[in-house]
Amino acid sequence: MSNPPKHLVIFQPSGRRGEVVEGAVLLDAARDLGVEIESICAGQQTCGKCKILVEEGTFRKHGIQSSPAHLSPMGETERAYWERRKNTGHGYRLSCAATVRGPLLVTVPEESQARKQIVRKGATERVIELDPAIRQYYVNITPSTLGDDRGDWELLQAALRDHFGLTGLRIDLPALRTLQDTQRAGQWGVTVSVWSDQEVVRVQPGYAEGAYGLAVDVGTTTVVAHLCDLRTGAVLATEAMMNPQVPFGEDILSRITYIQTHPDGLTKLNGAIVEGLNKLATRAARRAGLSPDDITDVALVGNTVMHHIALNITPLYIGSAPFTLATHDPVDVKARELGLTTLNRCAWVHVLPCEAGYVGADNVGVILAEEPHHQDKIVLIIDVGTNGEILVGNQEHLLSASSPTGPAFEGAQIAHGMRAAPGAIERVRIDPEALTPRFRVIGDDRWSDEMPPAEIQAAGICGSGIIEVVAELFAHGIILPSGKFNPETPSPNFRRTARVGEYILATPDQTSTGREIVVTQNDIRAVQLAKAALYAGAKLLMARRGVDRLDRVILAGAFGSYISKEHAMLIGLFPDCDLDNVYAVGNAAGDGARIALLSRAKRREARQAARWVEKVETTIQPEFQTEFVAALNFPHAGDPFPHLEGLLTGARHKDAA
Amino acid sequence: MSNPPKHLVIFQPSGRRGEVVEGAVLLDAARDLGVEIESICAGQQTCGKCKILVEEGTFRKHGIQSSPAHLSPMGETERAYWERRKNTGHGYRLSCAATVRGPLLVTVPEESQARKQIVRKGATERVIELDPAIRQYYVNITPSTLGDDRGDWELLQAALRDHFGLTGLRIDLPALRTLQDTQRAGQWGVTVSVWSDQEVVRVQPGYAEGAYGLAVDVGTTTVVAHLCDLRTGAVLATEAMMNPQVPFGEDILSRITYIQTHPDGLTKLNGAIVEGLNKLATRAARRAGLSPDDITDVALVGNTVMHHIALNITPLYIGSAPFTLATHDPVDVKARELGLTTLNRCAWVHVLPCEAGYVGADNVGVILAEEPHHQDKIVLIIDVGTNGEILVGNQEHLLSASSPTGPAFEGAQIAHGMRAAPGAIERVRIDPEALTPRFRVIGDDRWSDEMPPAEIQAAGICGSGIIEVVAELFAHGIILPSGKFNPETPSPNFRRTARVGEYILATPDQTSTGREIVVTQNDIRAVQLAKAALYAGAKLLMARRGVDRLDRVILAGAFGSYISKEHAMLIGLFPDCDLDNVYAVGNAAGDGARIALLSRAKRREARQAARWVEKVETTIQPEFQTEFVAALNFPHAGDPFPHLEGLLTGARHKDAA
Repeated sequence: MSNPPKHLVIFQPSGRRGEVVEGAVLLDAARDLGVEIESICAGQQTCGKCKILVEEGTFRKHGIQSSPAHLSPMGETERAYWERRKNTGHGYRLSCAATVRGPLLVTVPEESQARKQIVRKGATERVIELDPAIRQYYVNITPSTLGDDRGDWELLQAALRDHFGLTGLRIDLPALRTLQDTQRAGQWGVTVSVWSDQEVVRVQPGYAEGAYGLAVDVGTTTVVAHLCDLRTGAVLATEAMMNPQVPFGEDILSRITYIQTHPDGLTKLNGAIVEGLNKLATRAARRAGLSPDDITDVALVGNTVMHHIALNITPLYIGSAPFTLATHDPVDVKARELGLTTLNRCAWVHVLPCEAGYVGADNVGVILAEEPHHQDKIVLIIDVGTNGEILVGNQEHLLSASSPTGPAFEGAQIAHGMRAAPGAIERVRIDPEALTPRFRVIGDDRWSDEMPPAEIQAAGICGSGIIEVVAELFAHGIILPSGKFNPETPSPNFRRTARVGEYILATPDQTSTGREIVVTQNDIRAVQLAKAALYAGAKLLMARRGVDRLDRVILAGAFGSYISKEHAMLIGLFPDCDLDNVYAVGNAAGDGARIALLSRAKRREARQAARWVEKVETTIQPEFQTEFVAALNFPHAGDPFPHLEGLLTGARHKDAA
Repeated sequence: MSNPPKHLVIFQPSGRRGEVVEGAVLLDAARDLGVEIESICAGQQTCGKCKILVEEGTFRKHGIQSSPAHLSPMGETERAYWERRKNTGHGYRLSCAATVRGPLLVTVPEESQARKQIVRKGATERVIELDPAIRQYYVNITPSTLGDDRGDWELLQAALRDHFGLTGLRIDLPALRTLQDTQRAGQWGVTVSVWSDQEVVRVQPGYAEGAYGLAVDVGTTTVVAHLCDLRTGAVLATEAMMNPQVPFGEDILSRITYIQTHPDGLTKLNGAIVEGLNKLATRAARRAGLSPDDITDVALVGNTVMHHIALNITPLYIGSAPFTLATHDPVDVKARELGLTTLNRCAWVHVLPCEAGYVGADNVGVILAEEPHHQDKIVLIIDVGTNGEILVGNQEHLLSASSPTGPAFEGAQIAHGMRAAPGAIERVRIDPEALTPRFRVIGDDRWSDEMPPAEIQAAGICGSGIIEVVAELFAHGIILPSGKFNPETPSPNFRRTARVGEYILATPDQTSTGREIVVTQNDIRAVQLAKAALYAGAKLLMARRGVDRLDRVILAGAFGSYISKEHAMLIGLFPDCDLDNVYAVGNAAGDGARIALLSRAKRREARQAARWVEKVETTIQPEFQTEFVAALNFPHAGDPFPHLEGLLTGARHKDAA
């Protein structure tokens, strides 16, 4: 017996190559060589996920003479597939149908590459292997005949085992309830969504590609949801809303107090966030042209109090020492058990782990997104929000803490504050000579002095705008290092009031309400308290970590636009650092939720990281109060802010876009 | 180094013995010798489950000189335990506290024997090892301190691991929600109920012995629930009700039709049984002095249609060939998912497997209860009900089938029929000379002729009464073998009507309504149809099994009193068998549910048996119709009923209690 001949096969773009025995199915050959090609119909030539192109010609660089004729000719099934899609003659072949007959240079198009990677552009670019909890399988089932005692579920199990080697599966009851109708509607061809290789959560008639998940960040003030395609990692829609718990208390302590003093407090707060999440899911699904019923998985982060309330667990024990959580482990639970009834009836929710009573799953999300535990450099990460969270350290030793920032940076407790939404002032510049302002609102790319006042329609100031206006006021001497308005300010926008003063940011003709938008002395005080809390927390962690300088600072936050790092540095939001090494990255906690949604490996990593990081309860340390008081003023250039000097000068003249 | 001395220790009543090293804890020594002693506090001397007695004296038979002084003296903790219970001086010791110092003859009292056994008195007595899904553990938890980041659940997990070696547990969300309050209410001592070594389903403050489950048989006409103590196997309460689905259709086919013809049909029928089960659970719990919240496990049986409707799955596909079920496997599901909201919020339901589209979980229950699959003898088991089920065979080959009996034997479709409840006539005798009746009603031990008529308060006839009255009428010639009334009957109770006739069983002064209770020609016809269906099904299975005689017949049924086997034989309910080998066993399906409730091993056995038994769809076999028609008449003595002759004579004179 002679051995069958072998042929060189090379796959692009990976460059993987090998000798393949004649007659081998190309899809199998690819897998043997470690090339991951999509396929959800298990070689039944129906899903088309495994399509490839074969190059024609001699490729010296690769040492190969390739031709589409080196594949077996198209059979009837494959031809029918391409004809149904009116896609014949473009050279595509189904790699599950074609066998090898000669040397091949194969291009695997982007959409056929399995385990595609998404890139997060944070402080550092990085890639994540897609490994979502939900995977889809298309199967043809052999229906039952008289004398075959098997039920529909046993028939489906047999098909999944035979075609995909899936064993030990269970089926969620709501999916079982519709299984018989579905299998007949699909004429015994169904698309099955399986959660964590364990449970069938959705059965759809026929071939129905598409699995979707929701990444949710429940902030104290802002709730953000990203609707993601679980097969590509793409964000299809992002929706945000004010946390509907805000009317019950603006920060976590006041919400705990509400629950403590109202017998139905937890029920009300839980009901509010559950209703809010249902709305967000519906809005996100609609925006993406989907139904909320298409959402079969959720990853959720939030600080510990938001975490407990969302799970309908009382946060009372988090409110006082020893700040004990009900659980710090990740929680996997059915969406319906949480009241998330607009989602698919069998959808799962993965709630990321908490670190300690005072550092929550949102901080774990930040770790997943920024990966300080994989880095050499000493990094400070500040997640700016009503409940600010801070990380200091590197892969050797990482510390975390929370800081009661207050909602100023989210636009609350500010006279004309609002959340980041169309009409919110998000950028502010003050002219160094005239000391008059110009600004930009969310939803319009023009500055206020580049457009007719009536078109501006400013509605308020959001977090990034608040940081910028206070920094600009300080940089131009309109407020003093103590935070007080300079009563001698020679600006037409400065108005001295009875005891203090205020600065007119938008005139009535520029606003949607027809009334001025002003910055008050109280607003500035709120910003001072907030930034001092973050600064003091960071200093405390640095001392604990034994470092007196930072290699890198990352500013994260869920409130719309990225923070201007220059302005944040101007007001002393964080300890000194070379501005080139300061990054503003947006909603890192939400990105962490998205990463956990897309990768089971990252869920496991999150659990380990949550246990490994050292948690510090900063606010009960005596040094905290000292640092906090010292940080209330705005910083002078020079020690301890050597990097501030150039910036102060620069800021006066800078007009960065 | 010399080895420590060893002493002979003998445990009663098991007789297990062995040499035990001095200083060993007696509880450990018992376990090493295979003697199972209860203990739920893991040797903390708090639960008292492990108490034992040591005999004093020389026991020649055992070759031992035993003394309580051969145990270590009582420590303070143990003394405090007995004093709290005012139970000092009775010689009991805690085996978890006492160590061995000399030879011991130990008596383990009944209540300290772990894995106690229950006895089912069916056709054969048998014992079952208690191995319920719910097990309880008492633990003391080390509370969290400042700097310990663990949540309450992680603290509980650590305690369960350290004291009982339990690992990999999860906790159901409703239990997690109350965990923090509970652990503090119990001052960090809690009793934990764990389901299937996997999930914490209940946490109670302090030491709270007691785990309870419900065994449910959902019959087409009658629903029965047994509330059981999961630690002893004892039935604490039994409650029954008419299936609230009866108004929607009296048999399974008419209920399928209802669902087919009403868009909300399934919702209504499911809602009816769910509401009924909630009521039964509450009633059973109250009767046992418990709360339905104490019920943490349920085992449920029913025919395939009742099974599907209870799970809120449409039974439509069971209604026509190939009679495919949604699933034939056992289903483990949360009670709350089924709407059983009166039970403990974390309670589980185990639904026994079905065999095929036409043989359900109730028949699997019968198999568990009667164990034909463990026997040599060829047995016929008839589960008499609206949907009768039949088993024929032995451990080598067992066949099952269902038979559409109709509800006559459950008192429905009978002029004065009623379900087995107080006031129902359950026993009937007819005087051979006067041809007048006497009877007994449920709730009174006296016969009707032994009491003043006004005290009788008969309300109707239940299943066992219907069988008896028809058999008596036939045995005394009042009805002919064809089923027709003998128009010449010389009885004051026989009334000839226009076309047929009727027999007056109770006179107006004997009934609660003040109206007669009569047996009509239609009633007799309904009994003929029902018994012929069972007989024909049994004959068909015997032919398939290749046997023409039965070693044993078992009559089971959920309708109150046991069937009188003599009367059942008289009307030809089953093929001929020596009356000594005929047994009436009551509700075997319900007993099977109880066995599954108490034993996980039996759940596994049920799954295997359900797959192994050969299912026969009798009604579509052509022979069925022939056998059915042939069986409509009442049997003559002689072939094929050699055992009937003596009985016919005997019955005329018999007045068994």
